[in-house]
This record gives sequence, structure tokens and C-alpha cells, in this order.
Amino acid sequence: MPYFSYFDVASTAPPHPVARQALLAAMEEGWADPDRLHREGRRARLLLDTAREAAAELVDCRPDELSFTSSGSRALHTGIAGALAGRRRVGRRLVVSAVEHSAVLRAAETHEADGGTVARMAPERTGRIEPDTVAAALTGDTALVCLQSANHEVGTEQPVAEAAGECRATGVPMLVDAAQSLGRGVVPGAWSLLAASAHKWGGPAGVGVLVVRKGTRFVAPAPRDEREAGRAPGFPAVPQVVAAVAALRAVREETAAADGRLRGLVDRIRDRIPMLVPDTEVVGDPVRRLPHLVTFSCLYVDGEALVHALDREGFAVSSGSSCTSDTLEPSHVLRAMGVLSSGNVRVSLPTGTTGEEVDRFLEVLPRVVAGIRERYAVPSATGGTTVGEGDEEGGVTVDALGMPCPRPVIELARAMSRTRPGDVVTVLADDGAAELDIRAWCHLREQEFLGEEPLNGNPEGDARAYRVRRTDRPVPPDDPAARWAPTTGSPEGPADPADPADPADDGLRR
Amino acid sequence: MPYFSYFDVASTAPPHPVARQALLAAMEEGWADPDRLHREGRRARLLLDTAREAAAELVDCRPDELSFTSSGSRALHTGIAGALAGRRRVGRRLVVSAVEHSAVLRAAETHEADGGTVARMAPERTGRIEPDTVAAALTGDTALVCLQSANHEVGTEQPVAEAAGECRATGVPMLVDAAQSLGRGVVPGAWSLLAASAHKWGGPAGVGVLVVRKGTRFVAPAPRDEREAGRAPGFPAVPQVVAAVAALRAVREETAAADGRLRGLVDRIRDRIPMLVPDTEVVGDPVRRLPHLVTFSCLYVDGEALVHALDREGFAVSSGSSCTSDTLEPSHVLRAMGVLSSGNVRVSLPTGTTGEEVDRFLEVLPRVVAGIRERYAVPSATGGTTVGEGDEEGGVTVDALGMPCPRPVIELARAMSRTRPGDVVTVLADDGAAELDIRAWCHLREQEFLGEEPLNGNPEGDARAYRVRRTDRPVPPDDPAARWAPTTGSPEGPADPADPADPADDGLRR
Repeated sequence: MPYFSYFDVASTAPPHPVARQALLAAMEEGWADPDRLHREGRRARLLLDTAREAAAELVDCRPDELSFTSSGSRALHTGIAGALAGRRRVGRRLVVSAVEHSAVLRAAETHEADGGTVARMAPERTGRIEPDTVAAALTGDTALVCLQSANHEVGTEQPVAEAAGECRATGVPMLVDAAQSLGRGVVPGAWSLLAASAHKWGGPAGVGVLVVRKGTRFVAPAPRDEREAGRAPGFPAVPQVVAAVAALRAVREETAAADGRLRGLVDRIRDRIPMLVPDTEVVGDPVRRLPHLVTFSCLYVDGEALVHALDREGFAVSSGSSCTSDTLEPSHVLRAMGVLSSGNVRVSLPTGTTGEEVDRFLEVLPRVVAGIRERYAVPSATGGTTVGEGDEEGGVTVDALGMPCPRPVIELARAMSRTRPGDVVTVLADDGAAELDIRAWCHLREQEFLGEEPLNGNPEGDARAYRVRRTDRPVPPDDPAARWAPTTGSPEGPADPADPADPADDGLRR
Repeated sequence: MPYFSYFDVASTAPPHPVARQALLAAMEEGWADPDRLHREGRRARLLLDTAREAAAELVDCRPDELSFTSSGSRALHTGIAGALAGRRRVGRRLVVSAVEHSAVLRAAETHEADGGTVARMAPERTGRIEPDTVAAALTGDTALVCLQSANHEVGTEQPVAEAAGECRATGVPMLVDAAQSLGRGVVPGAWSLLAASAHKWGGPAGVGVLVVRKGTRFVAPAPRDEREAGRAPGFPAVPQVVAAVAALRAVREETAAADGRLRGLVDRIRDRIPMLVPDTEVVGDPVRRLPHLVTFSCLYVDGEALVHALDREGFAVSSGSSCTSDTLEPSHVLRAMGVLSSGNVRVSLPTGTTGEEVDRFLEVLPRVVAGIRERYAVPSATGGTTVGEGDEEGGVTVDALGMPCPRPVIELARAMSRTRPGDVVTVLADDGAAELDIRAWCHLREQEFLGEEPLNGNPEGDARAYRVRRTDRPVPPDDPAARWAPTTGSPEGPADPADPADPADDGLRR
């Protein structure tokens, strides 16, 4: 492999050279317990205090407002739990956006299980939460609002300063998850709490930041511990903290210099992909977005196969398709936005990315997507059986039960290509992504989604019937799905998806 | 400072050279998200899986039983909460020893605040919890027993295998806090959960270990997170984990070779200190103990001054005296054992400690203790006033209110030296260590502790009256306290305790 481009910094950034150097030096100087009175302890204390002051300056807060936690997730969990406990007498309503990081949404679920209530703000189709949406969510019993500075999957920036202003005006604290943006600059506005994660900006893993502004009611979650103002139990990892702060300072300068160029590279990807790869939806806000991140979804492709194929071509990317996750559910972000989740790819560029790397990606991607689409075109006599045809509505029913994404939408497209305007196609499917992708397909193809209902009268089951009516808009005769024969839909026995030579490797690993 | 001996490895061990090397290498190879499908993710996954297998071998468990947490405290918190939740239907009684690490005791307090009950097993005066004590604590509604493998403050080893056998016989899971011993060997016995901390064995800070044996009912605390079997939320710190496991393997071999020698060095300290330093109590079990750790307490000395003075002489030690803590409370371990807490010093030797270093310590210590005792002998007209003399019991009352440790016990000793057998001395004091130290003084001097009661009828206040009767045993005429005039007892305005030239620096910093 002569080339390798790591396009996944939104997952984690490679350690910055400054972080490595600082970590090594601080392991010499700052390994001791900063709470000890002897000289080794005092040296560690000095390093920790100095790092806290430097971090506070980079966040624009007071040093005594900032605690170092063991991860960004812990910062979020502790920040949310502490703020909710501090406002318990006011009310037990938590407001979050539906596109927050899963650590926020899981903390919200915990709050619900504990008897609290949660309001989830729906985003625009771009992933944006408008300030009006935040204002409308503020009720008298709202204890806390959580809003990310920018979305981790699609890059859409949120109007944090305006939202914080709305919250401040009604006396409600707002927590900002700044994980995706703190390495790129100060988070503006009158927010009350902030959480971030050092490995996102090139610091070591194992360091998070939690800021609780003075005047914010906060009750640290139990068990109590004196470390870090009671907000992060356990022995502090001073060397990693020192390295994290050193990296943040270095990265801030580098991103300030590089972000204009990265924005241009992402614009190049955003502009060209729809022309280069048919049936692809670029998602997220095209303007109000992180400079280095772009996400798109490809019809009739499964995300895991795409990630593996791009990896073999020398590109590390990630995917929000359900095919890549343990849960069999597509990304909650894509779902909340109502956009296609199949064949989803997130590209997030490191600071040093060159135009040549992006051009190579744009050269490789169409071939890779076409190759995966071809692999679904294997003739087969099983699966995707049309079980009814020409019923009273002049439609057909397609059985895609047991088929993982992107198969149900492929079967839908096949069936639709044989219909006339007014005909209805019913797809029976139990994959977690089916509804989202069928709706998104209708949106892209300008076909009418009639609705869905549980099969066998079991509202809890996954099996559902999705009904789509043919409009007068054409289902393109060259739709790649139209010429594919159905393939085997067995979910069992996947081969190693990393092995392209395996004929059973269709990437449909569960 | 030509020499410096770090005698505080029980707080934290300096990073092992192997840990440094492994950390650097793993930062190159294992910085990516091990949950990602691309090659960088798979490299990190491979390192993490390999580290888990190696750690499991060193702990003697299965790899899928072992999770890496962000600290030993987190491992304890999660282990206790998860085991209690898993056994909630059986009962809500938690049994802990009174000498566990504060992370266990705080988790127990949290359980109580949540409606559970906690039984605290009292140790022998050596700090030992006998297996019979554990057996007696096992009731039908006991959900979990927590017992450390060895005590962190006095080094006493606990009969973990026997205790685990008692627990297993009644179907109660036992959690072992192995923080002080995992670097020295496998923890034997049928325990169900185990927690440990890498920085104690020379690994980096920020890595803990939690083992939950198969068959142990366990419900991971919320918010849920898929990482580490749901037992450690947040992005995993793979490089630190790799370094921690590499260090554990290296350290195990080194301690196996060195522990016999360290045991001899500690025996030298244990044997000589009572001869070299008058009025000193060596605490902990003399035989069933960690090889490298010894703790002693000196009458009429405050712990913070002692730590600072030894630091100036080139020795890093720690102290469980209340004068060194934020809480103004002496170590809960010394309190539970009922031993003297004033002038407490814990010496914990690194593997490479030489006999010369120990001899130098034994040469320096008597001089340092004598120097601090001399500093209390400053003539003064205020404080320690004898407010009553010759009352109906023929005794005196000494007002030591507002005086920090070790002053109340110094005032007691002064007053006792002027009494005859049968006389009663009442000491009024509000320092957190007063009761423990007055009781311990009576034990050492073979005087009779009559009891204590709250002053002013306020049972919640700190101010109490302690009554001691003179026996026919002498209060030594050469007791150093007897010839000291009372000194100023003001708790305010301490000078920098690190500055030996400051005449106001009496080390009594609060």
C-alpha cells in the first residue's frame, strides 16, 4: 500500500508530536501524587496547576471552573448529572437535541429511568437546531439544556451562543458538548457548562475537560472524592493532562492557519460527489459546518462494505450506517435528520491533508461504490420474493424480511421500476434502517411514502410493512437497482468482510 | 541535595522504564479507535485485545472477565455498584472492612444514601480482619463483601482466600481491592470481583482493572456504554493500557526477586525505630504484611511537619496524620485500628531500595523527630491553660480547645506529669484526632481512659471533654512533654510549611 490517508479525525486524531514530547517529559516530572507534600508530589502539583491555568485560558474560563476528567464521555455524564442534581428543586426536565453524542443521550435515558423527563429537540434536515427551537423548549421546570457546538457525524455547527442567550434569559443553564470544536477555537456565549475530549484534538486518550461556570448550581455525583473539585474521582493522570493541554495550544494555532484550506477541500468533495457517484446524498449544513468534515450516503450500498473497500484503497473513514454498528440501528443523527443512512461515509480531514489526497479519494470513490453495487447483482432464485402482484390497488408486495440494509431499499427500487403511476408497492422488512432508507429513497426519487404499520399486529416487533405509491415522477430506467436480480438474503454465516476474494463476502456482516 | 530516596511507592510508583517504552510504541500503533473498521482501528483493537489477554493471565482470570477502567477508584466504584445492583433482589446489605480504601468506603456511603445498609467489620489492632469476622458478617441479605488484599496505610495482609471461601460457602460474592498487591502476585481464592490500579505497580496513571468473574450477577451502572463490556464508558486509552500491562509483567518478575530483601529492610526499620526514637509506635501486622511497607507514629509530633522535615533530608514519605489532610480527620485506618495517629509516617520502599538508604533514614529520623519535639518547647503564656485544679476528684481540667494535633495530647501529658495516682485529668479539645490520640497515649502509658462526652450538651459539636485517671504506672519523669511549656494554640495564619527558616512555621497548617 503506497498511500494511506487517515480521514477519520472526528473519531480520534493521531497524537500530536507536541503531545508525545510533553507526555514523555511529564512522565519524568509529574508522575507522583499531586496531593502529597514531598517534593515529587509538589512537582506534580505544579505541573497540574499550570496545565489547568493554560487550559482555562484556551477555554476562556477560570482555572477553578475547570476539572480534568478521564474522558469526554465522563465529562458529559458528570456535567449532566451534576447540573440536574443542582437544579432538582426547580424541575426535572432535561432538554437535549436529538443529534447529541450518544453519551448525552444515554445520560438522558438514565435521567428518564430515574423519574425525570427528557425533551428531544428535532433538527432541521441539515442537522441544525435553530435558536427558536431551543427557545420553544424552555419551560419553567427545565433544569438543563444540552447542545453540542458542532455535530460529530455530519459537521453541522449549532448556534451555541444564540441558544445560550435564550437559556440565560430564562435562567436555565446550558451545557455545551464541545468535543468536535474545542481544538478549533473558543466556544462563545453564555453557556454554563462545557465538556470536551483531548483525543479529538491530538491529545492522549484518557483526558476530558469539564467546565462548570461559577454561579452554576452543581452537585457532584456520588461517590464523593476530593480530586478535581469532586468532579473526577481517582488518581489524576498528570502526564496525560499536561500533554493534552500542550497539544491543545499547538493545535489551535495550526487549525487557525489550515481551516480555510480544509474548507476548500471539503467544498471540493461536497461539489463533486453528486456528479461522480450517482444516487448519493451529501448531508449536513453546506455552510454552517466544521471546516474539515463532510458526510454522504450512497443508495444501494452497505456502509461496512464501503468502509472496508475504501480501507483497501488506502482511506480510513467511518460510517453511520447500521451495518457497521453492534446495535443494528442506523446512526441516531441520520435518523433524526431524516436522511439516507445506507452507504454512509464520514470524511474528516486532518490538518495536513493535501489536495492530492482529496483528488485521489474522488478518483477512487466512484469505482469503489460501483464495485459494491455490482456485487448485489448476483443472480439468485431466493429472497426478495414478490409474494403478491396485481392486488386491488394494482400493486405488489415484496418480502424483504430477514434482509439487512441496504437490501430492503434495493428490493423496493426493483419493484418500483416495474410499476405504473398510481401503483402501490408494499415492502415487508425488519431491518432497523428500513424505514429511514425507504423514506429517504422516496424523498430522493420523488415517490410517495404512504406509511408503515406493524406486521402480525405486533407493535413491538421489528417486522413492518412499508407502503410506497408510484408518482408520475419516473423511477429512472437506468436505476442500478432495476437491473439487479435478487440476491440471497440470509443473515447467517458472513465471511470475513476484510477478505475481498471471498465470494460469500457481501459485507453484510451483522 | 546529594541524595533523594522516594519511599512512597504505596502512593504511586515511578513509571517503570518498560511502561515508558510501551507507551511510546503504542502511541504510534494504537492511538486509533479500536471500534473502527479501518486498518488503524484494527491495529488498536489488536493491541487492546492482546493487552487484555496478557492482563488476564497475570490476574489469573479469563480475558472476557477483565475490563480496563480509567482508575482504580473507578474500578471499585463500578464493581461495587454493579455487584450490588446485580444482587438487589437478594438484599441490600453491603459488608466492608473498616480499613478499606476511601473509594470503597465512599461507595458504601453512597449505597447507604440510596437506602442500602452497610456493615463495617472492625479490624484487630494490627489492622487484620480475621476470617471469623467475615464469616460472622455474612447474613442472608448480604449482597456483597469488600475486602482488600493488603492495607494501603499499614501494609497488613488480609486473609483473602479464606474470606472468599467463607463468602463462597454462603453464596455471597466478594470483591477484592488488590491495588496494593497485584504488582506482587496473583490474588488467590474464590473471589468474585477484583479491582486494581496500574500506577501502583509502575504503569501509567489513568488505568484501572476490574475483573468480574463469570457467574457473578452484575448490572453495569448507567449511563450505559458499549466499551469494555459496559463497565468503563468513554474512549479507551489503548496506549496507557498497553503500557500498564507491560509494566505489570516486568514488575512481577522484579518483585519476586526483590521482596525477600525488602522484607529484611523493613524488618530493620521495624526493629530499630522503637530503640532509636522514644515514644514511637510501629503499627500493622509484623509478619502478615506487604514486604516493602512499614508505618509508625510518633507521640508529640505532627505529621505534616515530619513529612516536610524528612523531605528536606531527602526522603519522600507520606502520613496518615490529620494534620496532613484536608478533612482535619486522622486516617480512618489508624482510627479503626485504635492506634496513635499523631506523627504518623508511612514508609513504602521501591524495589531498588538499598540498605544504605534505609540506614541513612534510620540515622536521620531520630534527629528529625527530636527537632520537631523541641519546637513545641517554646515558652509561652497563652494556650493550654489549666482552668481548674484540685476539684473534688483531686484532678485538673486542661483547655486545649482550638489546638490542632498533636497539642491536646501534649497538654494531657504535661498535666498528667503533675498528678498522683487516682487523680483525674479532663482535657477539653475539638481536634478530630484528639480522641484517638488520647486513647492511644493512655494505651502506651498504661493510664486509664475514663471516657468522653460532648461539651455544652451539643452532641454534634466537635468540642468534647476527655477524662483520664492516673494509674499507679508512672508517667515517665523524662517524658519530653512534661518539660515543655505550653505554646500558642492559634490555628490561624500558618506560614509556608516548606520554609524551614520561617519561625512561624510550626507545621500546623490546616
